[in-house]
Parts: sequence; structure tokens; C-alpha cells
Amino acid sequence: MAAGTDPNRLDALEARLAAAEAGLARAADELAVMRILASYSPRVDSGDAEGVAALWTEDGVYDVDTGRLDGRDGIEEMVRGEAHQGLIAHGCGHVPSLPVVLLDGDRAVATGYTQLVARSSRPGRYTVLRVTASRWELERRGPVDAPDRGWRVVLRTARAVTDDGEGRALLGRSREG
Amino acid sequence: MAAGTDPNRLDALEARLAAAEAGLARAADELAVMRILASYSPRVDSGDAEGVAALWTEDGVYDVDTGRLDGRDGIEEMVRGEAHQGLIAHGCGHVPSLPVVLLDGDRAVATGYTQLVARSSRPGRYTVLRVTASRWELERRGPVDAPDRGWRVVLRTARAVTDDGEGRALLGRSREG
Amino acid sequence: MAAGTDPNRLDALEARLAAAEAGLARAADELAVMRILASYSPRVDSGDAEGVAALWTEDGVYDVDTGRLDGRDGIEEMVRGEAHQGLIAHGCGHVPSLPVVLLDGDRAVATGYTQLVARSSRPGRYTVLRVTASRWELERRGPVDAPDRGWRVVLRTARAVTDDGEGRALLGRSREG
Repeated sequence: MAAGTDPNRLDALEARLAAAEAGLARAADELAVMRILASYSPRVDSGDAEGVAALWTEDGVYDVDTGRLDGRDGIEEMVRGEAHQGLIAHGCGHVPSLPVVLLDGDRAVATGYTQLVARSSRPGRYTVLRVTASRWELERRGPVDAPDRGWRVVLRTARAVTDDGEGRALLGRSREG
Repeated sequence: MAAGTDPNRLDALEARLAAAEAGLARAADELAVMRILASYSPRVDSGDAEGVAALWTEDGVYDVDTGRLDGRDGIEEMVRGEAHQGLIAHGCGHVPSLPVVLLDGDRAVATGYTQLVARSSRPGRYTVLRVTASRWELERRGPVDAPDRGWRVVLRTARAVTDDGEGRALLGRSREG
Repeated sequence: MAAGTDPNRLDALEARLAAAEAGLARAADELAVMRILASYSPRVDSGDAEGVAALWTEDGVYDVDTGRLDGRDGIEEMVRGEAHQGLIAHGCGHVPSLPVVLLDGDRAVATGYTQLVARSSRPGRYTVLRVTASRWELERRGPVDAPDRGWRVVLRTARAVTDDGEGRALLGRSREG
């Protein structure tokens, strides 16, 4: 038998490939979760209500201190609402920070900050209106081969960092998956 | 014939490896594009004109509302110009957000924010002078084996988010590759 | 001999797999370094002194213009100190930007910005107190198979961007590994 046909080499290759596939899946998942967090901001700042809602599962929740939003309908309503529309017409950015992502199979948790920065009354100046701490809980749902299988937000909990300690408490959970 | 020499196992390994290679290429490309966006800021804030220009292709364009810059020469001129040099000598940061990256073979589009934050006249305070929305269009050019093959910016379109709606329109294109 | 048992195919597979493994290691390392930078902020803003210090090596240094911190003990002391505790009780975020990461085997350098944003005396407003440029030098230490092998910060050099040019000089080193 030729050396090249040694079944041990095939076994070793299969084991190494399986390890590489697992490592690649982790990297791809981490990037996919980061992409969801990054996508929220341009969608919300351009008033793309459907695009924002599509980042959540159908029954997803956006639990924010200014009002809890239930399901995609609740999220779309917020984006289409007068308060949000006024802000984006005036000129603002919900600027996303670099997040920490923790993966656990088909679940993930990401912790990050959003600064809401809007044009000030002084020309050529912007004001930071909010610094929000967010804990994003995500899941990958659906059959393994489904074309729309992918990561979605199940629950985003968001609190301004103030002296009430709620934002701080969320940030304190960044090490918990 | 030993089980290990089954040609079907080799076929299966080759197919799995090809899939892993494709997945890895996507992850590496996404990280490479993020690295270019991240690199712009320290280079521009340290006055590294050549380093900033090198992120673009030779004929790349930086289309910003404060003046369109054509080619690497145009970009270097801006960095060496009085306005920019005054700003960085005073103390400022062009702080980059987490971007959304969409890949399509040898082309990529990234959408993100930059906050221009500079020292205020009040000691120990900074002022946000601009919140810029950017759409970066990148290409990977050159022969596959060329040592300098890599991603470069072909067109960066940048608009402050104001009530003129231009920044908002750019952000609204974040889902378009 | 069946075509599938050709030792050349095995050789080719092994070479391709080795290249994929190397590429995956680079992507995973880059993400791991980003995760450390991202982790600093929620840990420091929630007062998790041990969690912040654990990002450094035992003998790691946090060389910041407001005072050099030596080793994990020095870093924990800063987090537990009155100045920091007052700031986080009041409400603040050390908001991390997208960083540039350069890898070189078991060493890495990352350059990025942190904005320290705190509640202002005006309700519903925040003030940017600092824009800090940081150069993070990291190492991966320990035996290859050790469970706690991983990236740690050896030296973080941090300077506010002001007219003293120190922040600017740090940013100017973003291309140096």
C-alpha cells in the first residue's frame, strides 16, 4: 500500500478539519452578531422601521427605559413615531461602540454602548443626549438548512447610564453568557 | 482495500475543506475591511498623510460634504492642509464606530459613523463638532498572487448628519451591497 | 489503485488545511484581541475591579497620563478608588471605538480611542470629559495546551488627545507592530 493511502492520515485530517470548522463557526458567529448590533444604528437613524424590526425575532423584545417595545410591531411603531422621526429629521446618530460578544452554541449575548448624538442649537456643534448601555440576547433559530436561518435579537435591554445604577448593573453582567 | 483509503472519504474531505476555505475567506475579508476603516482615524489624527492616502486606490475618491478629494494626492493635501493641521495640533479624535460590512467577492461596502471630537475652550471638556455618516466602497485589486493585493477604498462618501437629510440618505443605503 | 487513494491528493489536502488553520488562527486572534479591548469598558464602568485587572498579565502596566498603574493590584486600586467610584456612581461610559489590531505570532498591538462621557449638570445631557488614544500591547503566554492560555495586556499606554501632542504621537504608531 502506498504511504499516501494510510487511513491514519485520513483520520487525522478529518479530526483537524472538524476542529477548524468549529473554530471558523465561532469566528463567523461572532462577526454575525457584531453585524446585527452595527446594523441597528444606520437603520434606526434612516427611519427604516421594517429593517430595524427585522433584526429581532417575531416575538423579540426591546426593553428600554423610555418604554418597553414588544415584538416587531412595537419596534416599528417606535421608529415611525413622532419623537423618533423628529430626532432623525433634525440630525442625529445612534453611534454604536465596539461590543463584547459571548457565544454559547445557538445563543449569544453582546454588551455595548450607544451614544445618541444630535445637532445642538449652536451651529457646528453636537450634543450627547444619551449614553446607553445595552445587553443584547440573541438566538439562531430555524432548521439547519433553512435559507433564512440566522441570528436574531430575542431581548435587548437598554438603560441610560445615570445615577440610578441600572445601566451600571447591565454593564456588570457583560461576563455572563 | 482498507477502509481508510475509500476515495469517497477524500471527496468528502475536499468538499468540506472548500466550504471552510470559503467561510474563512469571508471572515478574513470582513476583518480586513474593518481594519481599513479603523486605520483611517489614527492616521488622520496623527497627520500621517501618506498613510491615510494609502488606504485608497490610486484613483480613489473621498467625497465629503466639506470638499471632494480626488486621488491619493487630493487626500494627502487635505491632511497636510492648514485646517486639518490646526485641528490635530489643538487635540482631536475622529472616533470610528462599529461598522456594517457587506461583502460581494472582490467588492465590499461598509457603513459607519465618525464622531469628530475636539478639545473645548473649557479645560477638561471636549466638544463633538461633527457626526459623520460614511459609506465606504472598497475593492480588492491586482493578481491573486501579488504581494500587495489587498482591499483599498475606491469611494468614501461622507456626510454630516444634519437636517439636510444627506447623512440620513447614506445611512439608508446600509443594506445595499 | 483507485484514483481516490492518490497520495498526492492527501498531500494537497494537508497543505490546504494547514493554510486554512493558519488563516483561522489569525482571524480568531484578531477577534480575541478586540474582545479584550471591548471588555475593558463595561468592567470598568460597573466597578468590576478584579475583572478589569484580569485583562492584564500579572505584571502588566497601565501607563495613563493621570497616573501609572503597576500590576493587577495597581489597576484594581484605581477601579476601587474614590475618583473612579464617584464617576461611575454619577453615570458615565468609557466608550470604546473600533480599534486597529496588528498581530505578530504571540504578540499583538491594538490602537484605538476611548471617549469618557459622563452625565452633565444639565438634565438629559452628557459631556465628553476625555478623548483618550490608547496603544495596547498584548501577549499570549503559557503552554500551548494550558486551559488558561490566552491573550493578556502587557502594556496599555493611554494619553488624552490635547495640544501636548502625546496622544497624537501614540496614534502615529498605529502602523507599528
